[in-house]
Amino acid sequence: MTETVQRPTLEAVAARAGVSRATVSRVVNGADGVTEPLAERVRQAVDELGYVPNQAARSLVTNRHDAIAVIVAEPESRVFSDPFFARQLRGISKELTAHDNQLVLLLTEGRADHARVARYLAGGHVDGALVFSLHRDDPLPELIQRAGVPTVFGGRPGWSGGRDGVVYVDSDNRGGARDAVRHLLGLGRSRVAHITGALDQTSAVDRLDGFRDAVADADPRLVAEGDFTVAGGERAMRELLERCPGLDAVFAANDLTAAGALRVLREHGRRVPDDVAVVGFDDMLPFAEQTDPPLTTVRQDILEMGRLMARLLLRGLDRTARTHDTSGGDLAGVVLPTTLVRRASA
Amino acid sequence: MTETVQRPTLEAVAARAGVSRATVSRVVNGADGVTEPLAERVRQAVDELGYVPNQAARSLVTNRHDAIAVIVAEPESRVFSDPFFARQLRGISKELTAHDNQLVLLLTEGRADHARVARYLAGGHVDGALVFSLHRDDPLPELIQRAGVPTVFGGRPGWSGGRDGVVYVDSDNRGGARDAVRHLLGLGRSRVAHITGALDQTSAVDRLDGFRDAVADADPRLVAEGDFTVAGGERAMRELLERCPGLDAVFAANDLTAAGALRVLREHGRRVPDDVAVVGFDDMLPFAEQTDPPLTTVRQDILEMGRLMARLLLRGLDRTARTHDTSGGDLAGVVLPTTLVRRASA
Repeated sequence: MTETVQRPTLEAVAARAGVSRATVSRVVNGADGVTEPLAERVRQAVDELGYVPNQAARSLVTNRHDAIAVIVAEPESRVFSDPFFARQLRGISKELTAHDNQLVLLLTEGRADHARVARYLAGGHVDGALVFSLHRDDPLPELIQRAGVPTVFGGRPGWSGGRDGVVYVDSDNRGGARDAVRHLLGLGRSRVAHITGALDQTSAVDRLDGFRDAVADADPRLVAEGDFTVAGGERAMRELLERCPGLDAVFAANDLTAAGALRVLREHGRRVPDDVAVVGFDDMLPFAEQTDPPLTTVRQDILEMGRLMARLLLRGLDRTARTHDTSGGDLAGVVLPTTLVRRASA
Repeated sequence: MTETVQRPTLEAVAARAGVSRATVSRVVNGADGVTEPLAERVRQAVDELGYVPNQAARSLVTNRHDAIAVIVAEPESRVFSDPFFARQLRGISKELTAHDNQLVLLLTEGRADHARVARYLAGGHVDGALVFSLHRDDPLPELIQRAGVPTVFGGRPGWSGGRDGVVYVDSDNRGGARDAVRHLLGLGRSRVAHITGALDQTSAVDRLDGFRDAVADADPRLVAEGDFTVAGGERAMRELLERCPGLDAVFAANDLTAAGALRVLREHGRRVPDDVAVVGFDDMLPFAEQTDPPLTTVRQDILEMGRLMARLLLRGLDRTARTHDTSGGDLAGVVLPTTLVRRASA
């Protein structure tokens, strides 16, 4: 390995400065009780030797690592293929960097690895956690809570019933979906279909509720289940065309799903928007502008969601440090508004 | 925050089991000297209370976190937009998960954040580090070495002169480039241009050397500098067409660069491969099959590079644990072969 350079020890610093180990430890950890000339000698020895304090020991004293874990409850392959996560991480990264906190992304192959993630969280390596893309029945929130790590969730957790103090940042999924479907109805469409997201996630359930708000008497055959992926959108669109060939509009649960639907509509010779109007959700750029035709969609500010998650967590940590109040107090959900962006597809 | 559940303490476990704190500590940390019936009582109390040991304290004893840091020396935005990194991370993730080690991806906004990354590494939160996409003059390797964290590099570090025991995994960049250019010459092309990668990276320098191996007397105007991105490929291709309108082949330093070159060639009405043959590097799938025309390219096994990096690191850690040998011994560079994959572009 690369350890050809011996790492300088606390003992070496003490010897070089001509002081005790305890004195070095006090100076390094910012404790009181060391006279300034002595402290200066220690700092000089630290510089000369390039000593780096063992933070595992140090954090027992300071209780702060300036590091925040981010967990996306999806397999690593999905994290890197869905631009939604990259965008949210960008917002988080900008905010954490601005506060000189290290972003620690904990990747997994799947849900089976969540216990290991929780172990790492419990291990005292980070000050807090940002968790997103939770699915129903995922043991992760429970494990995180047990680990005692302050957490902000991206998206409303589905298991919040009965638990106080859960902090989350979400978009107005239901309101955005309602706007999208009302827009389609306003264009004179009467057979509006919906391709859902993964229905074990609250965002998908909320968008389905928004669809139902707008078309209370919707034919149940006009709803097909997707999973927020292009392939899922293709599958669901084929189902819908088979069941309801007369449909004249589709509200897709996200832009990737809409892209899949557009591809299948094209295969079947349906013109968009003339024969079938299509609306997505996310406004993932440049993706949503590059579909054929460019996508009318519900914009949510994903970057800002990430920033806000990080900001709420850091603010909570500061308050905890000042007041030793870990109750969460009045913090709860923050829901950001959405806006409909009109392009050519509807 | 979410800390509504009080985290159970070591003291609580001791009280429940009716033993001393020291006994609980010994059992939790796997130390000897506790009789089996007593140990069983402690384990039962741990289970009942859902106690999670404080790993910062624990790691002072065991010296192992079962966590490996991965650092890509690029801004977070680049990590998520270049599929090369996703592929390499996939290989790393599979290997670490198979050994129940947590992948800890440390993201940065840029080089200014590398000191903070080194601080996290030095802080005793991980057992080792995998580092890739190093650029010349990056202080990161020096900082990592100071932090005393066993490290395996992806790609040959440019600063290896004079330092022993540097472990890296690389592809045969020079040999692969030579094959690509010889293939173009074999097609009867006589004005072969090269768009380089970022020349502060050894992979780009090695590929340029391979190009020169094959065409020793190349007109210097036939070499244009790129940066491994599509936009860099476009820029360089425009330069080349201006300087040498008679060129009949291009070897691009990677597939993204080749895609940029293809786009500009099409804009200028040059047919590929009839007027200009193009070869890339990486064989990034499905990307390399979806260019117009599909790309002839040099395949490197990126996934396997990632797996091998992780395997070498874990093996080194095991050996260190067994023998207390941190010298690195005989480990050094592992260079994987490349193969030319023929598609329509050359």
